[in-house]
Amino acid sequence: MLKKKLIAEFIGTYFLVFAGPGAMVIDDITKSISHVGVAITFGLVVMALIYTFGHISGAHFNPAVTIGFLVRGDISLRDSIYYIVTQFAGALFASFTTLLLFGNVANLGATLPSFSEGQSFTLEFILTFVLMMVILGSAVHGKAIKEFAGLAIGGTVGLMAMFAGPICGASMNPARSLGPAIVSGATQHLWLYLVATVLGAVVASLVYKTIKE
Amino acid sequence: MLKKKLIAEFIGTYFLVFAGPGAMVIDDITKSISHVGVAITFGLVVMALIYTFGHISGAHFNPAVTIGFLVRGDISLRDSIYYIVTQFAGALFASFTTLLLFGNVANLGATLPSFSEGQSFTLEFILTFVLMMVILGSAVHGKAIKEFAGLAIGGTVGLMAMFAGPICGASMNPARSLGPAIVSGATQHLWLYLVATVLGAVVASLVYKTIKE
Amino acid sequence: MLKKKLIAEFIGTYFLVFAGPGAMVIDDITKSISHVGVAITFGLVVMALIYTFGHISGAHFNPAVTIGFLVRGDISLRDSIYYIVTQFAGALFASFTTLLLFGNVANLGATLPSFSEGQSFTLEFILTFVLMMVILGSAVHGKAIKEFAGLAIGGTVGLMAMFAGPICGASMNPARSLGPAIVSGATQHLWLYLVATVLGAVVASLVYKTIKE
Amino acid sequence: MLKKKLIAEFIGTYFLVFAGPGAMVIDDITKSISHVGVAITFGLVVMALIYTFGHISGAHFNPAVTIGFLVRGDISLRDSIYYIVTQFAGALFASFTTLLLFGNVANLGATLPSFSEGQSFTLEFILTFVLMMVILGSAVHGKAIKEFAGLAIGGTVGLMAMFAGPICGASMNPARSLGPAIVSGATQHLWLYLVATVLGAVVASLVYKTIKE
Repeated sequence: MLKKKLIAEFIGTYFLVFAGPGAMVIDDITKSISHVGVAITFGLVVMALIYTFGHISGAHFNPAVTIGFLVRGDISLRDSIYYIVTQFAGALFASFTTLLLFGNVANLGATLPSFSEGQSFTLEFILTFVLMMVILGSAVHGKAIKEFAGLAIGGTVGLMAMFAGPICGASMNPARSLGPAIVSGATQHLWLYLVATVLGAVVASLVYKTIKE
Repeated sequence: MLKKKLIAEFIGTYFLVFAGPGAMVIDDITKSISHVGVAITFGLVVMALIYTFGHISGAHFNPAVTIGFLVRGDISLRDSIYYIVTQFAGALFASFTTLLLFGNVANLGATLPSFSEGQSFTLEFILTFVLMMVILGSAVHGKAIKEFAGLAIGGTVGLMAMFAGPICGASMNPARSLGPAIVSGATQHLWLYLVATVLGAVVASLVYKTIKE
Repeated sequence: MLKKKLIAEFIGTYFLVFAGPGAMVIDDITKSISHVGVAITFGLVVMALIYTFGHISGAHFNPAVTIGFLVRGDISLRDSIYYIVTQFAGALFASFTTLLLFGNVANLGATLPSFSEGQSFTLEFILTFVLMMVILGSAVHGKAIKEFAGLAIGGTVGLMAMFAGPICGASMNPARSLGPAIVSGATQHLWLYLVATVLGAVVASLVYKTIKE
Repeated sequence: MLKKKLIAEFIGTYFLVFAGPGAMVIDDITKSISHVGVAITFGLVVMALIYTFGHISGAHFNPAVTIGFLVRGDISLRDSIYYIVTQFAGALFASFTTLLLFGNVANLGATLPSFSEGQSFTLEFILTFVLMMVILGSAVHGKAIKEFAGLAIGGTVGLMAMFAGPICGASMNPARSLGPAIVSGATQHLWLYLVATVLGAVVASLVYKTIKE
């Protein structure tokens, strides 16, 4: 039933955006988490949420992933729109909670390019391409050991955040970028995180066809 | 048999409170573990204990979780009282061991709000709400891949400790807060960790009804 | 066949003692691994070796664990002696490799009490007691999800190293302590790590009877 | 079908060499990842890629591993040549991407001995020997819990990177060493990483025969 799926997507995206960008905010305030701790937070929250909601909604929590599945015909256009609106709502609500609790600190964990927009655009495209390949390879492929998809996907998000976070923020997720950007007002580079991530996921869905069983 | 369950709950809660808050004490003494290491300790100990005792007692080790299950009717009132008393006893015994070994250092790892009580109350409510949702979604839901619940729940405790620990201590567990507070004497904010966590778990049990299969 | 088991125990104990204490030596030389990295090394090496050799030898790599199983009658006296001799040989050979590669640095990663012997004795007893409980609960108990025992046991060793390593070295393993101590010459506290660990494992085997199915 | 396998090997090796050595480059630029974060990146990327491509190509991503399987007769000479050429191509393409994005920084994450070549040669031999043993023991052995091979192998690469990285770079993989060395020009020690790793994997394949079921 769609309603249950949307509740799962809402709670999941809410907590993903509350915990991950929240770790950046709290690290800015307390100087105790460090970049390594922030990246571990991102990886673990995705892993835990997949095992919690994967069997209910598919555990997207990410409009780029939902569009990647839409291109493949795995989700209807109507449902994908409901999913995406719900994901954005969860992200906005999460950033609003962070604002109320901590004030407008560290742009509420918004993703911002450290250097050029071109560099971060390229990185976000590659990261989301690989993330979508991991999702398709580990959770959709007919011979995959699907029980481990949560570990593979959470691990991927964690390692992306670890190695690419200091350059581009390692968003891979329009909702994760939109929530903190809109609520904090740091929207100047938001377009990049909306476009590059969706592009990466769509290209991955197309390339995946060449290796699927 | 109840006796076996209570032995499992006692040993489990004992070691959870010995290792996690103990990491805070030893970090205070040796300055070598760091916040990241403390958070990893919390996550791993919960994960390991679930795979050790989950099939014996359900691996609660946490009165808020036991009350969350009581609200759903998964455990009888009588058994839940035995569980909670045992959990508090294990926690007190653990903090007493820590006191004997290291002296009254770092409040024996008691949870204390870094800033306002309101902020920490809100955080503890959200954290325990999500923890209980993860437990219900990953270990109870009919379609869950239940074997991975230990990873999902341990991962959740680890990430909560990582990102929210510097603000509120990331207790999510009245026993984990009570042991160090009572034995060290740092009881001034204890009420918060008893009330907010139970509230979060109970609300999660109610909200979960809307998404269960 | 016993020969295959002993080869597995030799390679496993060799690499456990080469990697874990080796991390301490290399951290002393390069100052880049940190205590957190050393603890993660210990946890991962135990986890990986269990999935590599568990189905061949049972993946003890630890005389205290072998004696814990001997007390339960899970292994014959004759086989347990072969196991223990092999484990000590693997550990000595590992520390000798470390000596050849790096010289006699950081006592080759020997375990030494940071403060009193009594404190470290108590800690090693508790740690090995819990380690043996985790082994019996996650890998032996009739209702355990045995596939996850490698994660539970590796996670336990990792968290023990993380929180207790700065005080007592978190040995839990006579072979892991004997190899570096004998080859480096730092044998003054070795008795403690031989006695407390075996005692902890034996007591756990006895206590476990009260909760087994 | 070979084509699908080669696409999987190409994408897998590409991303392994983009993420791992990329972490070293980005850490050099931003000073935020630390050695611990780099090692975690290596471990997670191998784990995630095994669950993504293991059921398609076997998830080698490593010429030494492919040669280890060739010695055992698990892969034909013709296919192994295709695999190795593809792995080198993926690695070169990855290092070229890193060069375009970040410039010739930190030798693009090339592996270099910190001290003598003999020391690093010995270490790389031992590391790759153990890595190949873990692969054979956890993913090939008839009684192995094969679903966990991704965790065991990823964990092994992570711990190797953690403890041995500061000395020898913990390559264990000719492709991972060749890509950054060729594209950055730091080829002076490349021979070591090509020879020692292949030797370690081949010896492991031979030794493994003594313990296989």
